[in-house]
Amino acid sequence: MSLLTMLFGEKKKSASVAKERLSLIIARERVGEDGPDFLPQLRDELMQVISKYVKIDQEDVKFNLQKQGNMEMLEVNIVLPDQH
Amino acid sequence: MSLLTMLFGEKKKSASVAKERLSLIIARERVGEDGPDFLPQLRDELMQVISKYVKIDQEDVKFNLQKQGNMEMLEVNIVLPDQH
Repeated sequence: MSLLTMLFGEKKKSASVAKERLSLIIARERVGEDGPDFLPQLRDELMQVISKYVKIDQEDVKFNLQKQGNMEMLEVNIVLPDQH
Repeated sequence: MSLLTMLFGEKKKSASVAKERLSLIIARERVGEDGPDFLPQLRDELMQVISKYVKIDQEDVKFNLQKQGNMEMLEVNIVLPDQH
């Protein structure tokens, strides 16, 4: 299964009305446990950059943080309001 | 297979020396064909934000753009130099 299908594939079945969607994933594989945990701060800054390009309603933004061993992943799914 | 394994799983086999890695994925599902194509510009700005958090050597950054129907995805894989 391709990454794209994994990101958007399932949503197609549940989506009655076609909506523009944007997904942002930041994944980090650490070598050790040290080093700052910058994903939350990075997420906020990345959201500010994205909102310069598309109008975002906060209630249409879903965050998902996953940790698996030395890997962590922050997924941001945004259903975009009609931009026109 | 989880998204995290998909992103970092394969690299583990080929990686002889453990390196810190960062993956950024921006995926967009469009409703129609209209609307600006902002992924390339968005990518450059997101890279500027990330480089405030981690030191990035440009030759360790790989971009991958995929289009599938009305879906497009920009993947940025960064092998981070030792940050210490």
